[in-house]
Amino acid sequence: MAEAAVDTRQFRDALGAFTTGVTIVTTCDQQGRDVGLTVNSFNSVSLDPPLVLWSLAKSAASLGAFQNAEYFAVHILASDQQPLSDRFAKRGAEKFKGLTPARGNGGIPLLDGCAARFECRSRFEYDGGDHEIFVGEVITFERFDRPPLAFHGGRYAYAVTREYTPAAAPIRDELRYLDRHGLNVLLGMAYHQLNLRLAPELARLGLSEEQYWVITIASGGRGRSIQKLDSMIEFTGKRVNVESIEELRQRDFIRLEGEGESAKVFLTDSGNQVLMEMAAITKAIEADAEENLDYNETQLLRQLLQRVIRSAFNQERKNLGS
Amino acid sequence: MAEAAVDTRQFRDALGAFTTGVTIVTTCDQQGRDVGLTVNSFNSVSLDPPLVLWSLAKSAASLGAFQNAEYFAVHILASDQQPLSDRFAKRGAEKFKGLTPARGNGGIPLLDGCAARFECRSRFEYDGGDHEIFVGEVITFERFDRPPLAFHGGRYAYAVTREYTPAAAPIRDELRYLDRHGLNVLLGMAYHQLNLRLAPELARLGLSEEQYWVITIASGGRGRSIQKLDSMIEFTGKRVNVESIEELRQRDFIRLEGEGESAKVFLTDSGNQVLMEMAAITKAIEADAEENLDYNETQLLRQLLQRVIRSAFNQERKNLGS
Repeated sequence: MAEAAVDTRQFRDALGAFTTGVTIVTTCDQQGRDVGLTVNSFNSVSLDPPLVLWSLAKSAASLGAFQNAEYFAVHILASDQQPLSDRFAKRGAEKFKGLTPARGNGGIPLLDGCAARFECRSRFEYDGGDHEIFVGEVITFERFDRPPLAFHGGRYAYAVTREYTPAAAPIRDELRYLDRHGLNVLLGMAYHQLNLRLAPELARLGLSEEQYWVITIASGGRGRSIQKLDSMIEFTGKRVNVESIEELRQRDFIRLEGEGESAKVFLTDSGNQVLMEMAAITKAIEADAEENLDYNETQLLRQLLQRVIRSAFNQERKNLGS
Repeated sequence: MAEAAVDTRQFRDALGAFTTGVTIVTTCDQQGRDVGLTVNSFNSVSLDPPLVLWSLAKSAASLGAFQNAEYFAVHILASDQQPLSDRFAKRGAEKFKGLTPARGNGGIPLLDGCAARFECRSRFEYDGGDHEIFVGEVITFERFDRPPLAFHGGRYAYAVTREYTPAAAPIRDELRYLDRHGLNVLLGMAYHQLNLRLAPELARLGLSEEQYWVITIASGGRGRSIQKLDSMIEFTGKRVNVESIEELRQRDFIRLEGEGESAKVFLTDSGNQVLMEMAAITKAIEADAEENLDYNETQLLRQLLQRVIRSAFNQERKNLGS
């Protein structure tokens, strides 16, 4: 068919515009060996009877196993199962090595840690060009409360549900107008909210904010110079001054090697103790801030903030260069 | 089949664990009328020949149209096409009203603004329980560079590609260690990066940061009291003081109605002019910060920051209450 001469690479790219979840489909072959592979061509078909489908390349080594299988299992992968997805996407790898799958109907392997799992009886097998379409009737299924692994544009992706109404009714004007604020206001508010919790803890420890940064950043162990620490802290809006460094030394939190600005800063044992205490405080504050975020959302927030920081930083360099 | 007595609601929920994109599938019925509906059961099947599939409830009003259609089009929706998705998901609505679709093979309607579009010739039709599975051969397709609309857990979702390696090679230590930093450091850095750009602009206008907030927040027009403005600005880490308010009044940026803390603040014409200038500056800074973020990522960053602010705020209230 002349019209069908589409460019395969471009076609694949265009299909990538459709977001999918990621599944692993498993069964046993006729020798009773576990078989499984990563599949994103899964989808629901029918509610009554409960049917799902997926398709498999006719060239796949496991085609025969699935054609002969009475049962197969579909695992919708959770966000943190990317390594498992990679493993089952590889041809010929020892996919089940080290895994101890549970056993379902017909002894088929059932994997743990997924977002949902369906045990199916093979129902229809349809021609789909270079793929075979398998339709299974769902016999049993389980759903687990885990954020999903997604796939888009040929790469793994995060999928996060859109929010329309605030999780909690807004209590003060500031919250009511949150969605109209610009990025800098939102960043400022979020930062300030976390800092509101940190400030009393720092006061209790008798530390200023820049001293807090010095201890945090000096913790590398390699010994950074005062100059270096200053240039690293500048990035957070604070500067290191000689007095605050001297105070930290007098309180035996740091020791210095060398003289002046190029003196290297090392944490002492008590410095490390304070560091650990601060780390615990920071972790607790973050855990509170993230209490309404799932794994995907936490990862994404970090990714997006890092991207903003890099953009701003590159922009700054561009301006300096111009 | 006894085993197949699955709970439909629970089954539907479990299927929702699989993330999908959202498509609109269109064709013409035998009377030449445009037909279309929102579908998320789309998926790719075969590369050679290029086949895609989707399924349609046998009870759907448009079933006959698709069964008789020689051609149909699949539109993978872009992130900002949620309203279109809603419209085509409704039964019996005048779905094409106000739209002026282009025409494809056999006169089928082609919609604009999507992330990818496939024109298909009907190829196979398979039984899928209460649904009919349509397999189409792709004749032509187009891909547009737009972030996708996604669906998860019965709700619209954002899908954002995972980042492994930084977009740009890190240039300074601060950036190299970005991914090890906690949320508060990332927030602080991002906020500071934006503020670094804002500060010289404020200096040029001769405004302090709290004066900037006062003008921004007083812009509502309703007239808020000094007290109220203070409580709103406190949230950003700044406080309103009498001197800075008086200075704004002397510079004719605001006028006051009433006395003392309960005096209401209104922007004057020159105040509004400064506001507009500041808004333009803020927008430019934000645009730079978001230059590496697509529509989905921008929306998501705001959503996640709002969630963090709410969590922190609720946490604060909890602490105050305890």
